[in-house]
Amino acid sequence: MSKLTEICSRIREPDHRIAEATQRLLDIKTKPRRSLGRLEDLACQVAAIRGTNAPDPPQKAIVVMGADHGVAEEGVSAYPQEVTGQMLLNFARGGAAINVLARHAGARVVVVDMGVKAPLSAAPEIRAHRIGSGTHNFTKGPAMTREEAIAAVEVGIQIAEELVRDGVTLLGIGDMGIGNTTAASALAAVFTGAPPEDVAGRGTGIDDVALKRKVDVIRRGLSVNRPDPQDGVDALAKVGGFEIAGLAGVILGGAASGIAIVVDGFICGTAALAATRIAPVTAEHLIASHRSAEVGHRLVLQALGTTPLFDLNLRLGEGTGAVLAMNLVEAALCILREMATFTSAGVSDSGA
Amino acid sequence: MSKLTEICSRIREPDHRIAEATQRLLDIKTKPRRSLGRLEDLACQVAAIRGTNAPDPPQKAIVVMGADHGVAEEGVSAYPQEVTGQMLLNFARGGAAINVLARHAGARVVVVDMGVKAPLSAAPEIRAHRIGSGTHNFTKGPAMTREEAIAAVEVGIQIAEELVRDGVTLLGIGDMGIGNTTAASALAAVFTGAPPEDVAGRGTGIDDVALKRKVDVIRRGLSVNRPDPQDGVDALAKVGGFEIAGLAGVILGGAASGIAIVVDGFICGTAALAATRIAPVTAEHLIASHRSAEVGHRLVLQALGTTPLFDLNLRLGEGTGAVLAMNLVEAALCILREMATFTSAGVSDSGA
Repeated sequence: MSKLTEICSRIREPDHRIAEATQRLLDIKTKPRRSLGRLEDLACQVAAIRGTNAPDPPQKAIVVMGADHGVAEEGVSAYPQEVTGQMLLNFARGGAAINVLARHAGARVVVVDMGVKAPLSAAPEIRAHRIGSGTHNFTKGPAMTREEAIAAVEVGIQIAEELVRDGVTLLGIGDMGIGNTTAASALAAVFTGAPPEDVAGRGTGIDDVALKRKVDVIRRGLSVNRPDPQDGVDALAKVGGFEIAGLAGVILGGAASGIAIVVDGFICGTAALAATRIAPVTAEHLIASHRSAEVGHRLVLQALGTTPLFDLNLRLGEGTGAVLAMNLVEAALCILREMATFTSAGVSDSGA
Repeated sequence: MSKLTEICSRIREPDHRIAEATQRLLDIKTKPRRSLGRLEDLACQVAAIRGTNAPDPPQKAIVVMGADHGVAEEGVSAYPQEVTGQMLLNFARGGAAINVLARHAGARVVVVDMGVKAPLSAAPEIRAHRIGSGTHNFTKGPAMTREEAIAAVEVGIQIAEELVRDGVTLLGIGDMGIGNTTAASALAAVFTGAPPEDVAGRGTGIDDVALKRKVDVIRRGLSVNRPDPQDGVDALAKVGGFEIAGLAGVILGGAASGIAIVVDGFICGTAALAATRIAPVTAEHLIASHRSAEVGHRLVLQALGTTPLFDLNLRLGEGTGAVLAMNLVEAALCILREMATFTSAGVSDSGA
């Protein structure tokens, strides 16, 4: 049995009886029943995933994976391709948005080179798990082989498992890759069945001409490769990216290890869709952080069957939305852990 | 010149040139322009209010004011009136939702008794600024005199000024008062012109019969008192509450001191509307935290001309939404302060 098959067989449905028991605990706290809305849902969901109605304060880590995309040569991004590697070095030095927000949230950042074009100069803060020097241009054939896609997914699984063994109990995922909204849009088209023009957006900020080109690139990629929407690995291999496949693996590994995974925006959303095509029960382990400004994200969230926690018009990626949402998850668990009950506080209850 | 008039004359428009300079600083950080969406808006707004494009990390305090409402005797709440005082004691002991979330956010909680029915047993953590033993039932005449409303507003101003002198640079506001969604709904009807049935909701969880009664109570209150929508103090006096008037004062005092005020849900929203009727420029100092599940809140937010940061289906009050939003404000200021620029990080810029 392959690592991937073995992990998928270990992903369990969250325990709904624990979710119900957690709601009963929340119902005796000094507040009207359900008046903390989605914070209460978060507490119940995380408790059910963790298998206890008294989860410890979360140990948080955000895994940011970067890789290059052959399709970038089609002129689908506002930025030159070398920015992927430059930004990974920026992550390693702590200067990027994700570093700032992760420090603020008390989350560890794990930076992974899944295959940027040129190998990076030595940076011990970057974990090198390079599947190749960027994917192939998917308008001319598959972005990678099926074996490479599986290898990338397994890197993610391994990293998630290691982090959980290290004590991490809440994972976030983030991405970096010039050209990766094009790959993500192609995946979104595959998994949702929507036409390319409904899922392709402006990414880092392309103009109308480049957007038209991007839609055409996606259409050609789909017609050349004919990815199978029922087969997550096939779609990842044909039109995905090394970092997207890796992030699908982080989700699968986190879910198999019994923790919740906070998903960032559009690109991570397509990684999540791929993970749910590989192991459908994974969907219940996911927390969608935000609705991105990227146009295709709405359809991706719909396909995931989830409602994000906020919409702040973010479109940066890197896990920035995920790490902001981790704060809400932690707040929800603090409520469960620390709030007084009607009895302990001597407050009259209405039962309402 | 009265304290209130003097304070209103001191409230300045935020400096829009500083907002623009702050946006220029954000535009050279390593991210596509404007890709952090509303976090960037928050950083610019707070910088303009504080009068510097390099504001220090915020020192946060949340002022939670509690008072009782004569109109509670009409049977408009799911909870008995003694819960107001019991909850203030719960705040003092640190067991309520607002305490838990404020600890998590690193915000100080300032609890103020603006006039619960029965004076509370000694609790040094509660500041007593009692205007009376609860308001009068506004279906039978004004909830309080104009002098009492001004006194309540001035308590809020004084507390805000003290906190700012103490080093606080970001204020949140929260409320507690059995019956206060009825007062807030009446204020919302006055300030927005909407009929009572469009602004009256289920508060802590009343049933259909009680909701019908609540709408009728509001209608009678408005017809007996005829509050002047152009006169914030008149509306507060006739159908408001001691804590709502006090919170309007916290907003005015905070705005006059040059800091931003994060507004909680429906009740705080009507305090904010009252503050903007007293001094219109105050509106630019406000940050709306969340859209409450309470039905009237949408119209209040519209009248304030603001879009909240999130909608988590909260309806607890106490400042719980405000304190969650403070985390986002702080994150925005961290971005402004800590992120690397394209030049410092050696990342290629597209200008996009």
